[in-house]
Amino acid sequence: MTENYSESKIRVRYAETDTMGIVYHANYYVWFEVGRGDFMRRFDISYKQMEEMGIMLPVVETHCRYRVPAQYDDLLTIRTKVKELGAVKISFQYQVIRDSDNTLLAEGETLHAFTDKTKKLMNLKKHYNEIYALLAKAMEGGQI
Amino acid sequence: MTENYSESKIRVRYAETDTMGIVYHANYYVWFEVGRGDFMRRFDISYKQMEEMGIMLPVVETHCRYRVPAQYDDLLTIRTKVKELGAVKISFQYQVIRDSDNTLLAEGETLHAFTDKTKKLMNLKKHYNEIYALLAKAMEGGQI
Amino acid sequence: MTENYSESKIRVRYAETDTMGIVYHANYYVWFEVGRGDFMRRFDISYKQMEEMGIMLPVVETHCRYRVPAQYDDLLTIRTKVKELGAVKISFQYQVIRDSDNTLLAEGETLHAFTDKTKKLMNLKKHYNEIYALLAKAMEGGQI
Amino acid sequence: MTENYSESKIRVRYAETDTMGIVYHANYYVWFEVGRGDFMRRFDISYKQMEEMGIMLPVVETHCRYRVPAQYDDLLTIRTKVKELGAVKISFQYQVIRDSDNTLLAEGETLHAFTDKTKKLMNLKKHYNEIYALLAKAMEGGQI
Repeated sequence: MTENYSESKIRVRYAETDTMGIVYHANYYVWFEVGRGDFMRRFDISYKQMEEMGIMLPVVETHCRYRVPAQYDDLLTIRTKVKELGAVKISFQYQVIRDSDNTLLAEGETLHAFTDKTKKLMNLKKHYNEIYALLAKAMEGGQI
Repeated sequence: MTENYSESKIRVRYAETDTMGIVYHANYYVWFEVGRGDFMRRFDISYKQMEEMGIMLPVVETHCRYRVPAQYDDLLTIRTKVKELGAVKISFQYQVIRDSDNTLLAEGETLHAFTDKTKKLMNLKKHYNEIYALLAKAMEGGQI
Repeated sequence: MTENYSESKIRVRYAETDTMGIVYHANYYVWFEVGRGDFMRRFDISYKQMEEMGIMLPVVETHCRYRVPAQYDDLLTIRTKVKELGAVKISFQYQVIRDSDNTLLAEGETLHAFTDKTKKLMNLKKHYNEIYALLAKAMEGGQI
Repeated sequence: MTENYSESKIRVRYAETDTMGIVYHANYYVWFEVGRGDFMRRFDISYKQMEEMGIMLPVVETHCRYRVPAQYDDLLTIRTKVKELGAVKISFQYQVIRDSDNTLLAEGETLHAFTDKTKKLMNLKKHYNEIYALLAKAMEGGQI
């Protein structure tokens, strides 16, 4: 039995809402970042440590589709998984689910490059195969 | 001679940057919002007034492709135009250009629904044809 | 044995950091908001419900002293308590503590007015004594 | 005839508002940052260049008093001046003024330390007297 995604719990902050009384759209990408960090942690990879090792994951592309607006104080689950993994890039998929009624509020993807500290593209598979292998395993889903 | 886009000037705020020393990706969508507001203003439509009339433009979909990172204090131009206009939705296209060397840093789109204050979908063409006509004219480009 | 504060757990988001590699100062106020919400919840008051009842708590004054900077991925505790409670205003005190070594990173206060939906000042004690009593009890500390 | 403050023009972004229909309080500090950057620029000091020289100005204390809430699309003036200048620290004062009716919306202060890149306190007067002199001159007000 395997599972290849992580779940993050978020409570909507007042700061994240706008005059429409709903969450401002850009903030979903911040939640995706939270989901990404938790995903890595769940599969024994720390993004902070990756950065300390000199591996950066700058964002190359982002996309989000908003279905139902989140509101202040909502409890949400961010579900995160790896969509595609290559030697020089990785993409993640996300779902934002409202806990109270299990409604899918939004879904999105982010694409990241692997770079060194100078933002030069880096072949992760070649230079940090151990990290690459952890990501590959996380993508497939590990034993729980 | 016509022109169907607007230009907004932005200076990158420290608050918009992150530990990587570049602008955090979600903030480009905030700049797109600035671009959208200026676009409407440039074509004699005020989004604030639209909201007061009871017309909302909630965001339905967002997409951005990041090419070169913006950094603190950079002077940027956000170029905005309407991509598609329908009776119940509108999409905008954006380019983020660094003024110092005219580099294209990012480009994106946002899709919006027309709704009333209760977030119910609204046929703008039918209920507010005057606003619709202004947007249609802005899309084609007006006389300068 | 009583306790008159609440504790909220925060993990620093990448979005909250800046080019200096530390958390941008304004974001501590967002954490204070999280602390405030949790404080009320812990003492059986929901700020969301207060707003639905027509009671708003707009911020009148904020103050924060920063001792040691928080960084990406840090696990923090926000400790919140009521400092002063009056018929028309309330102030909260906050401490931001880094979990890894129990260091006090920052401390601050926020002062809020009680208003109705039109932002008119409201005597909470007079108009919503039940809520006022809950806040007063929370200030003193309740049984655990 | 001298003048010892700078003025920055801000248009309130939708992203900066919250469910109350007003600007979320933490965002005033972001505007103060804009004011600070413009202040320095106006007196021929670039904060970006200071950082490149290895001088950082981390925030040590912040305070703001909110009088009248700003709202989406408001045009604001941020007035900034140096309050106090010492060898190892500097404080700024800010006013937020609504352009439409010249109303004072908020006022605040921020206190900053001078540090090197490792966040170690630095005596600016001793190590970068040229920069210190520019700040001292800006504090007094220069010829216009």
